[in-house]
Amino acid sequence: MESKFLFAQEVIREAGAFIKDRMSQALIIEEKSDETDLVTSLDKQCQELMIQAIKKAYPEDHFLAEENDVTHPIAEGNVWVLDPIDGTVNFIAQRDHFAIMIAYYENGVGQFGLILDVMQDILYHGGGQFDVYANTTKLEHYHHRDFKRCLVGVNAQMYLENTAGIRDFTSLALGIRVYGGAGISMTQVISGKLLAYFSNIAPWDYAAASIMGEKLGYCLLTIEGEKPDFLTRQQVMFVPTEELSFIQKLVN
Amino acid sequence: MESKFLFAQEVIREAGAFIKDRMSQALIIEEKSDETDLVTSLDKQCQELMIQAIKKAYPEDHFLAEENDVTHPIAEGNVWVLDPIDGTVNFIAQRDHFAIMIAYYENGVGQFGLILDVMQDILYHGGGQFDVYANTTKLEHYHHRDFKRCLVGVNAQMYLENTAGIRDFTSLALGIRVYGGAGISMTQVISGKLLAYFSNIAPWDYAAASIMGEKLGYCLLTIEGEKPDFLTRQQVMFVPTEELSFIQKLVN
Repeated sequence: MESKFLFAQEVIREAGAFIKDRMSQALIIEEKSDETDLVTSLDKQCQELMIQAIKKAYPEDHFLAEENDVTHPIAEGNVWVLDPIDGTVNFIAQRDHFAIMIAYYENGVGQFGLILDVMQDILYHGGGQFDVYANTTKLEHYHHRDFKRCLVGVNAQMYLENTAGIRDFTSLALGIRVYGGAGISMTQVISGKLLAYFSNIAPWDYAAASIMGEKLGYCLLTIEGEKPDFLTRQQVMFVPTEELSFIQKLVN
Repeated sequence: MESKFLFAQEVIREAGAFIKDRMSQALIIEEKSDETDLVTSLDKQCQELMIQAIKKAYPEDHFLAEENDVTHPIAEGNVWVLDPIDGTVNFIAQRDHFAIMIAYYENGVGQFGLILDVMQDILYHGGGQFDVYANTTKLEHYHHRDFKRCLVGVNAQMYLENTAGIRDFTSLALGIRVYGGAGISMTQVISGKLLAYFSNIAPWDYAAASIMGEKLGYCLLTIEGEKPDFLTRQQVMFVPTEELSFIQKLVN
């Protein structure tokens, strides 16, 4: 597993370099489900680059990925979950604050996750049998904090609509932040800069963070408190496990 | 003016090092006007450090600063506007995403502004007779963009309450972001990563960005379209000047 983990770090770094080299070019932007659900030509090329590299090294492995309907079931065999550009809106509008994500599962059990904050050049990596690092800094396990001194990351729409009482919950905290991009937002949770994160996201958006988070005392659940389905877009929460029962009194 | 500008860059870099050296210590946190309006012992020490350094070099100059009621009128003589830690909430909850800001005025006319993003180690500086840089990268003048491909920075409360129609305006854009901290948010405007920023802030929060912004085609006005008063906390907008008349049709 260690060599596979090191290989994944190489793949994601190469994908990061690929995006950085090409991001100043004019992008071809397409709308997917609606006018804020966007994909660029680079998303697709970057995903293909990662798939080809992994297939070459591990020809028996399978993929679940954001673009082009690559949808192997998470519970069957060795599955790489890939998000070539997470935070595509940020990528398009800012050329910043986006991530590449890789998660690796064996028969439904997360083995490691990686999130590369491309422009800040920070690789969050670990989970499973591996400690979690931001580059060379080992991340700390969650320890209880006063919510009044914490910030909470949210999806703007869910905050606005007070979905499942999320806004009521955040009123116990010091404030909310909206960063856009699940990957970047969840790196802020595992590095202790956000207490929790609430959003409406897909498997490739939450897989890597959920594996790293589990190692550090966080859990990724649907708003109803169930395991996510690894199939559809769902409203989820990424919260400290030891605060879960308290949070569920307010969010449900 | 050039030597004063270089001197200001030294002062803000020293203040940044001062904060970084001490930020891992336990902080003494006080509430000011309410439970989210916080100040730490470091805010006050850092302000004093800057004032003493500037007084030594320019004993005749005056100050308008966030802490300790330092309130010289902006229009009278040489005035340094100081914010020792902008984004104190981020500083407390994240030890990240905060800024130190300096603006320098002569008889009410902005000469230069500086915003140091302490943890990313990026110094935004310029305005008046000076071009605006992020460290060594010259920032570009605003050029018209399709709002549908842009993000808007907002204060969460004003967004929630649709103050002055802000939320209606942001619905024309790709989305909103809530970063917390006027300084950090406005650096994202002048570097082209946010189209505009709306918040409820004080003179030391907007002075530096407004001087740099003016050089790059942005204006800092109250929501009503007036010059801010440099005295009180006001609802303001930081927007591209060439889009102002369009924005004012929606925000007022």
